[in-house]
Amino acid sequence: MVQKIYVTYNQVHKLCQASADRILNDFQPNLMIAIGGGGYVPARILRSFLKRPGSPNIPIQAIGLSLYKTLSNSDPVEAPGTKVTRTQWLDLSSLEMSNLIGKHILIVDEVDDTRTTLEYAVRELEKDVEAAAKKMGREGERAKFSIFVLHNKDKPKKGHLPQDMIDEGRYLAAHTVSDVWICYPWEATDIDEHDALAESQVKN
Amino acid sequence: MVQKIYVTYNQVHKLCQASADRILNDFQPNLMIAIGGGGYVPARILRSFLKRPGSPNIPIQAIGLSLYKTLSNSDPVEAPGTKVTRTQWLDLSSLEMSNLIGKHILIVDEVDDTRTTLEYAVRELEKDVEAAAKKMGREGERAKFSIFVLHNKDKPKKGHLPQDMIDEGRYLAAHTVSDVWICYPWEATDIDEHDALAESQVKN
Repeated sequence: MVQKIYVTYNQVHKLCQASADRILNDFQPNLMIAIGGGGYVPARILRSFLKRPGSPNIPIQAIGLSLYKTLSNSDPVEAPGTKVTRTQWLDLSSLEMSNLIGKHILIVDEVDDTRTTLEYAVRELEKDVEAAAKKMGREGERAKFSIFVLHNKDKPKKGHLPQDMIDEGRYLAAHTVSDVWICYPWEATDIDEHDALAESQVKN
Repeated sequence: MVQKIYVTYNQVHKLCQASADRILNDFQPNLMIAIGGGGYVPARILRSFLKRPGSPNIPIQAIGLSLYKTLSNSDPVEAPGTKVTRTQWLDLSSLEMSNLIGKHILIVDEVDDTRTTLEYAVRELEKDVEAAAKKMGREGERAKFSIFVLHNKDKPKKGHLPQDMIDEGRYLAAHTVSDVWICYPWEATDIDEHDALAESQVKN
């Protein structure tokens, strides 16, 4: 049986808080991109901690990505496969993609499990910025992406992140855990019981 | 001095939970639209409680709306005015606006203060769906919008909602409060102190 870890809202809040200095100093984001639904809560909390007095809030754009299992038998080695679908992408009527060229963009999600979703997000966003740069005659200019997740599961990953992102330390997991089942509070049907289970884990 | 009310994460969670039955039975949403950043947390929590066994999650689209003060003196009667700007709108590459025709759409935000943002959201979304319906030769077909907020402040409103939405009870505030200052947990710099303040309010 897979071990379950119960995480309370206040723990999530403190994980964001504990990472804020590192994010502000090292990543210096101009924009956050929250991967919904899991990235919504950490992104909103982070925004509070990333706000510098006298500066405006760092804007958040939400994107929606869903993993679904592919039942195709075409590749029997990797079955069942997983595919990412977009349910929402950046809104290019409010946000000019060209505004992202040269900017620091922080991608936020709750958990890095297989890394499939994160690979997709980084690759597709990089592609969009590259296309915008080309269109503007600014070839070679890129955006600098960094990643923040609440939890990284220490396990073999199906998805891969750009080597320069790893090399330059632009990946931050507030907590690294083994391949456990993480129960986030926003999924709890009984939040008091959830908190009690989280509390009993601390004691054991 | 304006009275402050401290709301804990678990209280927010329970406000969403307590409203879920009413939302499922009366509003029957096909889609949630979260007004960011305040609507992110309640929308994510609500999604858990709105999920019916065997059915997929109700999708969430995030939009970003900011209120900013206008300093113009052109209208001395209503100074300082407030204007709404879009920082993100629906992504029409992933979501066909025509798919919203005839659908039930739940708009989610944290607080209904002056109602300016909610008026803007409902009006602009209705306009977009109407334009899509016209384009498809389906004039007169609309989407049915409903609203969920954690808190409504009982005060004169600058913004107004469609009369049929009010008449048909498609507006739900989990809690109605007087014109107080609501401190949401995602804005707390010290979440333990925040919770202690919330606790002391209950006792007094």
